[in-house]
Amino acid sequence: MTTIKDIAERLNVSISTVSKALNGGRDISDNLRQTILDTAVEMGYVNRRSQKTENRKLCIFIENMEYDNPDQFGYDIVLGYRQAASKENWSIDILAIDQNFQIENKYDNYMMEHGYSGSFILGFALEDPWMEQFQTTKIPTVLLDNTIPSNPHVCYVGTDSEEGIDLAIEHLLHLGHEKIAFLDGSSNSLVSNQRMSAYLSSLSRHHLPIDPALAVYGYFVADAAHYHVPNLLSAGATAILCGNDTIAQGVIESVRDAGLSVPEDISVIGFDDIPIAAELCPPLTTIRQDRLSLGRNGYFVVHAMLNQVSQSKSLLRPLLIERSSTAKAVPRLVTNRVIDKDSVMYINPDLYGQRF
Amino acid sequence: MTTIKDIAERLNVSISTVSKALNGGRDISDNLRQTILDTAVEMGYVNRRSQKTENRKLCIFIENMEYDNPDQFGYDIVLGYRQAASKENWSIDILAIDQNFQIENKYDNYMMEHGYSGSFILGFALEDPWMEQFQTTKIPTVLLDNTIPSNPHVCYVGTDSEEGIDLAIEHLLHLGHEKIAFLDGSSNSLVSNQRMSAYLSSLSRHHLPIDPALAVYGYFVADAAHYHVPNLLSAGATAILCGNDTIAQGVIESVRDAGLSVPEDISVIGFDDIPIAAELCPPLTTIRQDRLSLGRNGYFVVHAMLNQVSQSKSLLRPLLIERSSTAKAVPRLVTNRVIDKDSVMYINPDLYGQRF
Repeated sequence: MTTIKDIAERLNVSISTVSKALNGGRDISDNLRQTILDTAVEMGYVNRRSQKTENRKLCIFIENMEYDNPDQFGYDIVLGYRQAASKENWSIDILAIDQNFQIENKYDNYMMEHGYSGSFILGFALEDPWMEQFQTTKIPTVLLDNTIPSNPHVCYVGTDSEEGIDLAIEHLLHLGHEKIAFLDGSSNSLVSNQRMSAYLSSLSRHHLPIDPALAVYGYFVADAAHYHVPNLLSAGATAILCGNDTIAQGVIESVRDAGLSVPEDISVIGFDDIPIAAELCPPLTTIRQDRLSLGRNGYFVVHAMLNQVSQSKSLLRPLLIERSSTAKAVPRLVTNRVIDKDSVMYINPDLYGQRF
Repeated sequence: MTTIKDIAERLNVSISTVSKALNGGRDISDNLRQTILDTAVEMGYVNRRSQKTENRKLCIFIENMEYDNPDQFGYDIVLGYRQAASKENWSIDILAIDQNFQIENKYDNYMMEHGYSGSFILGFALEDPWMEQFQTTKIPTVLLDNTIPSNPHVCYVGTDSEEGIDLAIEHLLHLGHEKIAFLDGSSNSLVSNQRMSAYLSSLSRHHLPIDPALAVYGYFVADAAHYHVPNLLSAGATAILCGNDTIAQGVIESVRDAGLSVPEDISVIGFDDIPIAAELCPPLTTIRQDRLSLGRNGYFVVHAMLNQVSQSKSLLRPLLIERSSTAKAVPRLVTNRVIDKDSVMYINPDLYGQRF
């Protein structure tokens, strides 16, 4: 096992200099500290100070996600993580960061310098600089809704999209719907792709035909609905399943703009159960991701990883929350089906065989 | 919260009778004990005795799986579970059972009567009587390689088949193989279906054509290979990926029976890394499921469930173990391709869109 002495010998500096660099001491140049941290990471040094019970620290890196008050998506996730981790005597730092922070700090170095045993990564996008560093890190790292192939020190946590979409489709089938459209989020997102794949599989499992005009990628914002909903209605949809609740909010408005009512004419169902879902008019039927549990699970996965279990994927059970935006199907007379072919993002046929 | 008194009142028996039934007391008729247990389960009674630290008990139910010595598949799984659980002060009972036992005992009743807080289920088949009871149980239950839809109290643990098959395909591509056959286990198994789906997806992702003659379901035993390998060779395979190591053992023999050598003419790769894999001639390249980690993870998942996290699926990272049964591809002259169409189990086209 690599010691501080080994690092000092490799770099030809004193043991106390290495110790300062590894433990956040300040009277040392930035340049030298970076060199020492790089070398320590490269040599596989493990900071024993961070192994002692009284120093056990984990951190949450959070980006593009609000978490300050209970109405915001990240609040319960952060709370659940803290609850579960502090019950087992960890102290937790919450670090709201941006891309510049990632450019200025190497992930492994930052973790080592601050004595963190593991991290929980919230709200990162594929283009974030650290995403590449996660491919090779040896520090237990748990990502919400992002996956890194093959690295045994990184695990993806999320909610089971397949089961969630299935719950929604079964609820709609039970209400007599057969023309069920799916307006998904962006095709650049792991979760959107999972949900599209789950929608196609669920229709197949229930022996329903797949109509490409009913399965479209949009974007994450409510506005995307105005563009797509008229086409979905023209294609005969009696129910619109949405890739998330924000999209569902836009869909309800767009259905109204088309002179139809939710749920009397068209049923709408969301995904996530964000805090506003219950406040919409009508209150939104949706698939709940339990955010407190997502947070708790972020901790339980890092706990397993710190005990030599390399998880790749840990998914939570979703829950159908029935409110008032879904009702019995009413057959619709679709007189003329007009589709502007250029405006519809058709599903990628590759997805049929792809798994996420 | 339901108390012993509530149960006693409902059944019009004394509190001490209920207490005896719930705590395994003997001087009470079997019939009455069953009635009391049924009622306790129905009323959602939680045995507080089993919540006390000194009484914390978990159990492993094991069927169709040997675990007595280190050469057997179940040994490390049971060991890993015990190690992780006893470190956190649980006592563990190992119960080797059969279908008769399941017919004679209701799962929930058995768990309550013996004060188990949760269980780990190894080696069960779809037709086992308890599989239906797992759909409604409220006791944290973790199944190895079996999935129960929608019940938040049941979680599936296993190894990430998709990533494992991908590691194997990438290893073979790296060696120059393009005609990669897949001889899977039985099509009635969840894991076989996952691996077939993963094989098809992996070929698609790597832009390789899918030849149905190269993707066949067999059975779990080595003998299945004798039947299928001649067809795979006729279809031009230079590498045969197998649904598990036992099948791979049969494939190596069958390739030899056909007058060819492993790995000089044909590369063979297994899945699981069971103890005999390293002893085969040649030693088998395979995808490792880390059985100690599978066991540990069985515990960490039940630990999360006991802390109000409903997981649906928790998958481990697989690992490519390179031994001597794979080598550089050698182009093969396939002079006459003879396929007895009746003998090949073609893949089900539904699988392309299905996820497991």
